[in-house]
Amino acid sequence: MGKSDPPATVTRRSFLTRAVVAFSTLTATPSVAAEQPQALGIPAWMKSPGVGVSEYGHPSTFEQKVTRTLLRTQPGTTGSGASRTPLESLEGIITPSGLHFERHHSGVPEIDPTQHRLLIHGMVKRPLIFTVEALLRYPMVSRIHFLECAGNSQLMYGASPPNLTVGQAHGLVSCSEWTGVPLRYLLGEAGADPSAPWILAEGADAAAMSRSVPMAKAMDDGILALFQNGERLRPENGYPVRLLLPGYEGNMNVKWLRRIKVTPTATMTKDETSRYTDLQADGKALMFTYPMEVKSLITRPSPGAPISGAGLSQISGIAWSGRGTIRKVEVSTDGGQTWTDAELVAPVFSRALTRFRHAWRWNGQPAILKSRATDDTGAVQPTRDKILADHGSNVIFHYNGIVAWSVAANGEVKHVFA
Amino acid sequence: MGKSDPPATVTRRSFLTRAVVAFSTLTATPSVAAEQPQALGIPAWMKSPGVGVSEYGHPSTFEQKVTRTLLRTQPGTTGSGASRTPLESLEGIITPSGLHFERHHSGVPEIDPTQHRLLIHGMVKRPLIFTVEALLRYPMVSRIHFLECAGNSQLMYGASPPNLTVGQAHGLVSCSEWTGVPLRYLLGEAGADPSAPWILAEGADAAAMSRSVPMAKAMDDGILALFQNGERLRPENGYPVRLLLPGYEGNMNVKWLRRIKVTPTATMTKDETSRYTDLQADGKALMFTYPMEVKSLITRPSPGAPISGAGLSQISGIAWSGRGTIRKVEVSTDGGQTWTDAELVAPVFSRALTRFRHAWRWNGQPAILKSRATDDTGAVQPTRDKILADHGSNVIFHYNGIVAWSVAANGEVKHVFA
Repeated sequence: MGKSDPPATVTRRSFLTRAVVAFSTLTATPSVAAEQPQALGIPAWMKSPGVGVSEYGHPSTFEQKVTRTLLRTQPGTTGSGASRTPLESLEGIITPSGLHFERHHSGVPEIDPTQHRLLIHGMVKRPLIFTVEALLRYPMVSRIHFLECAGNSQLMYGASPPNLTVGQAHGLVSCSEWTGVPLRYLLGEAGADPSAPWILAEGADAAAMSRSVPMAKAMDDGILALFQNGERLRPENGYPVRLLLPGYEGNMNVKWLRRIKVTPTATMTKDETSRYTDLQADGKALMFTYPMEVKSLITRPSPGAPISGAGLSQISGIAWSGRGTIRKVEVSTDGGQTWTDAELVAPVFSRALTRFRHAWRWNGQPAILKSRATDDTGAVQPTRDKILADHGSNVIFHYNGIVAWSVAANGEVKHVFA
Repeated sequence: MGKSDPPATVTRRSFLTRAVVAFSTLTATPSVAAEQPQALGIPAWMKSPGVGVSEYGHPSTFEQKVTRTLLRTQPGTTGSGASRTPLESLEGIITPSGLHFERHHSGVPEIDPTQHRLLIHGMVKRPLIFTVEALLRYPMVSRIHFLECAGNSQLMYGASPPNLTVGQAHGLVSCSEWTGVPLRYLLGEAGADPSAPWILAEGADAAAMSRSVPMAKAMDDGILALFQNGERLRPENGYPVRLLLPGYEGNMNVKWLRRIKVTPTATMTKDETSRYTDLQADGKALMFTYPMEVKSLITRPSPGAPISGAGLSQISGIAWSGRGTIRKVEVSTDGGQTWTDAELVAPVFSRALTRFRHAWRWNGQPAILKSRATDDTGAVQPTRDKILADHGSNVIFHYNGIVAWSVAANGEVKHVFA
């Protein structure tokens, strides 16, 4: 709501009543009255049969611009880098697997599932090696959960706002339906020592990406994921099997999982000493900062998704928390002076993307949009100023602060620090 | 459970206790003890970097056999026919969009979204034409719903059981997260006559596929879907906009939607007089049989997904009802003599696929597997015999009867009439 509007919730009926006016006068391609269906004409694609059925489908050629953005490919290396999900082009809470963000440390291995093995050893009674076929026989669970790279939104620690789309700057977050075997079943079968406080998880990529995971988390809700959005995992998401630790930073969810070692201490791998620590302003670094904190983004309108004209439209966005369930998302259209509760769209799952929506009648004047999420632990998404005050700007991980979009009179939307 | 087993629910702990035995002795590729990680060796894919990030991802080359099955392409026509979802290869409730079943009457039109128009006319105060861009400004909702072709499982009306996989015989059902504009918003904006009992929906394919829809359904929960599993609709699912009528037979959910006419009667289009009627044993035909009735399928093990060996495994399947929410799925492993409640896997949504699971210790002897679903209206999935007694075998639509799988001693699974 603009400042001049009453803060009352826009009801469906009043929304529609106003939409009639807004729609016919203000959209870029307004609706026109038509008494006869002939006014539609017969488009070319009705004049001859279309293409036939196909074994595996793909998006429309008219949507070819909707891709992941490859921003950090490094010359001289194969496969290092990341690709971002085009959040500005998506709706709902499921990310199509072809657009799920990527972060690889040494590229995507092409793994023959008949040759892949998973070893569970260390402080166990019975070290075991599992084939993928064996894993597929175990009892499975399905869960809808987000994954977010610890480095998502890291440009927000910079001195000036990124001149990028919402997906390019914040698209290291995606959400899928994951199906697989609860890790506690296999730890139980191997006879893991109940007093062991840690496990080590190692991937079968050329980086042997490795992280230590608290045993309590592994036993609570860790999953060996075999399926993603119904089908087997995609290669870039760990085919044939990955670790899934709901709510924890992306790199902990070790892909191409080949080894779990039950250990008396954290292993202090290269990935957790040299990379995934959070350097604070005082020169000390935080380690083992696992859960991704409560966060939200307005995805439409957004940088990359301008407004096509003034009038009534719907603000749409996503919120999530690695600690639990989203309870509230507030939206401001006046730079944070006033806030209104957005609608949370069912289903609202713990540690899943939650879609929020909010009716907004834009008057065509410059505006600043923000969203602010609250989870069921009571945690509230902080301001960027607070994050910088608490953690400084040396850190590149775990940015969960409020982001702000400026809307220009021509409908263009940009990142601003506001 | 076999007849000799107690019918008590298998708990997680007892499952695991028994799984240790079953796993080490009975799986096709048994687990082996290993004291050292060196026992794993270093696979080829850890010895050099993998491929880099990509703009749009695809399944593993090792999963190339997991495709839709094209069974009814008709020589001399372009694009008529259907393709089936490989249910035996999928898990969870989301169908990846590339594997969503297809049914086209004249192929898949390649529609330029900037040229596409939707007309709402007939008994309305203000006939309106909408561009796709205009539709994208409207308030949207997201819903997870199944779609099932009325002709799914039609071979079950035949004299002998189909020698096909579960997907080939029953895979004209899929489930997606759909996002779009409630149809009542646009009917309201056009000023649809509240006394008009019907609408006509027409597609922009060369068949101009057309169906009549009760106004009450359109106003209740009809959606103009623009997004499927997060991204814009796939071409074979109606890009750029389709009608979605939760629970109603697939063909009513008109794809490539270009026209909605508010009408005083059903229109009696070619598609609802010549095709989608249900010819009964007495020569009369049922018309306007919209909701898909309560139904279930065991997808693993199943024809196409044999059992790799005796011992403990998990039966997995899907259930759904066009009238509401699945309340119960019973599984029988003795041909229907005894039944045990399966676990319903959250989330359980109205008119969505619901995943069920059931622990089963197979003794390696021939067995007959069945599942039977009940929805929240109290409707119970009937036997095939009852369907044939009630409707005869002239009809090819709306088969929702119990299906049976025979498991042979070698683990192969086939359709049987039992």
